Amino acid sequence: MGMSTGFGNTPALDDSVRVEGGVVRILDRRVFPEAVDWVTAHDAEEVAAAIAAMVTQSSGPLYAAYAGLEITAGQLTGLAPDAARERMRVAGHALETARPTNNHPREAVQRVLAAVDEAAQAPGATTAQLVEAAVDAARSGARLYRERSHRLATAAVELLPDGARLLTHCWMDSYLIELVRAAREVGKRFDWVATETRPYLQGARLTAHTLAEFGEHVTLITDSMGAAALAPGSAIGPIDALVTAADRVALDGSVVNKVGTLGLAIAASAFDVPFYALVQSPDPEAPTAADIVMEQRDPAEVLHTLGRRTASALVTDAWYPAFDVTPPRFVTRIATDRGVFVPERVSDYFAPAVAGASA
Amino acid sequence: MGMSTGFGNTPALDDSVRVEGGVVRILDRRVFPEAVDWVTAHDAEEVAAAIAAMVTQSSGPLYAAYAGLEITAGQLTGLAPDAARERMRVAGHALETARPTNNHPREAVQRVLAAVDEAAQAPGATTAQLVEAAVDAARSGARLYRERSHRLATAAVELLPDGARLLTHCWMDSYLIELVRAAREVGKRFDWVATETRPYLQGARLTAHTLAEFGEHVTLITDSMGAAALAPGSAIGPIDALVTAADRVALDGSVVNKVGTLGLAIAASAFDVPFYALVQSPDPEAPTAADIVMEQRDPAEVLHTLGRRTASALVTDAWYPAFDVTPPRFVTRIATDRGVFVPERVSDYFAPAVAGASA
Repeated sequence: MGMSTGFGNTPALDDSVRVEGGVVRILDRRVFPEAVDWVTAHDAEEVAAAIAAMVTQSSGPLYAAYAGLEITAGQLTGLAPDAARERMRVAGHALETARPTNNHPREAVQRVLAAVDEAAQAPGATTAQLVEAAVDAARSGARLYRERSHRLATAAVELLPDGARLLTHCWMDSYLIELVRAAREVGKRFDWVATETRPYLQGARLTAHTLAEFGEHVTLITDSMGAAALAPGSAIGPIDALVTAADRVALDGSVVNKVGTLGLAIAASAFDVPFYALVQSPDPEAPTAADIVMEQRDPAEVLHTLGRRTASALVTDAWYPAFDVTPPRFVTRIATDRGVFVPERVSDYFAPAVAGASA
Repeated sequence: MGMSTGFGNTPALDDSVRVEGGVVRILDRRVFPEAVDWVTAHDAEEVAAAIAAMVTQSSGPLYAAYAGLEITAGQLTGLAPDAARERMRVAGHALETARPTNNHPREAVQRVLAAVDEAAQAPGATTAQLVEAAVDAARSGARLYRERSHRLATAAVELLPDGARLLTHCWMDSYLIELVRAAREVGKRFDWVATETRPYLQGARLTAHTLAEFGEHVTLITDSMGAAALAPGSAIGPIDALVTAADRVALDGSVVNKVGTLGLAIAASAFDVPFYALVQSPDPEAPTAADIVMEQRDPAEVLHTLGRRTASALVTDAWYPAFDVTPPRFVTRIATDRGVFVPERVSDYFAPAVAGASA
């Protein structure tokens, strides 16, 4: 079993991508916490393959992309600067195309390649200087991601009363971890209801485990029980808010997140429970959800549970959309690292004077 | 594996409770179709225990209750008529209290005990005459249940166009089997999307399997994907109707069915997809859903999948409401063995002139 119970304020999943000895080690979330296995990736392409295979997900691919770029930089010794830059671009391409819907790996690649390009502008720039720029950008990018997660969590906590019972879906990763920390900073505590989140059971394995590590109280439900939990008179209610991450938010306020979010948001709306979606920033290049590529994953996952066939052997067809789109009419507020917005005004995130604005 | 693929027009689950040699054999739906195991019950109390343990569910407890009463009748030899009647009452009590929410076992018990009581009114009635009355009532009751299921299915088919794509949840049992048969009688064919229905996975194992046995096309989804399937532009849509059974329907049109029905019904309503609930009859003794006992089952089931622990070992709290209540505003029509009703008028089922009426 090798159970990791974490300790204090640092759950195991808060440190699940590491650069060690020139390789990337990624905690395998497909089996955690039943097993604590680390997948080793020796280059950016192996990191990309791990992302595609769901070794890590949610915030994980962001950290993995930065780590993949950092070890790629460490492998540039002996290359001329132009060849070094080309290798970084190839590595970046592999990392940013591993999965299509979540934008964070692309942002990581853009950040590091921009730093490399800037360093290359200096007269007589050496490969060693490019390496240093890449490593700095990768490490500071990962730090910045955590800081922005903490800022959006702080904004979200302002929406939530002390003692609120929160329904969450899938695994918010750094957003969840920072939400607990931000709440404690202001003396608030929440009670949690987590969906198990088939087919990968991120809720049952990652979210519920991490909350338990923190000492938070969490009640697990199947994905079918969300509406019953939200309904008036529910035995585990009242639920004060539905709170999820968003993999992407379009400028029209559409929320793209793990499949199942839509159904919970509609039920919350029907029962007048607010739905708060957490994202560092809306996507400036996605005017609507139609501008976001929606990943379809292998339907075989729906026929299996943790590797075991759980559907009748006669069943051959299944459907596995990794994400769904929640239209803005079912979203109450979007909490970002620049404060809280009503969904229809989330593009104000990019208005010059808006930093810190609250809708 | 012992896979049963059924044959022709008779899927395996259409004959899953049998009286053989004075015992009841019940197909174990907890493991079907991966294994085809039959649980043997030697008296009514063992049948009741099998119902409580979910060896069979949906229509199964109705058939099991009749079978339990039939073998109880066969065990009355040597008892005086009064003692025989008392034994039937005790057996009936065990069967009708095995699970609280679905009323069918209670109806079976009332039917058989009424037949026994009537036979006992005859001057000089013998135990043998009581036995004959009980066996007749049990066997004809099971036949009548199938006939009524076929009538409600015929009414439901009239609501559904040929080629309709139907989303269904959990396992409608005799209603599903008769729905396929009734559609074929009028030359209609449907395309099916089935939810897997955690925690017992009745959709993945029973519904999808039975539809495949029939040669129907079925696509399996997890419980979290219903809203995404119902949404405009869904890759497996458009869904023409949500169709489920109802364990109970109150006189105000509230639909009590497997947990998860509520969330699907709300999503269907939000996307203007009709929701048709199938039930033989509303419950004349339940003016509202508040008059229906809602069963809470062992939360440990939520932490496990088919016997394997699938939640983090740190998680101790879970919630398993077996049913939820869909308010009438989210229900489009209720199909009964006396025709179709709008939910707000379902009590017209009991109006003297209404048989066959359609709303």
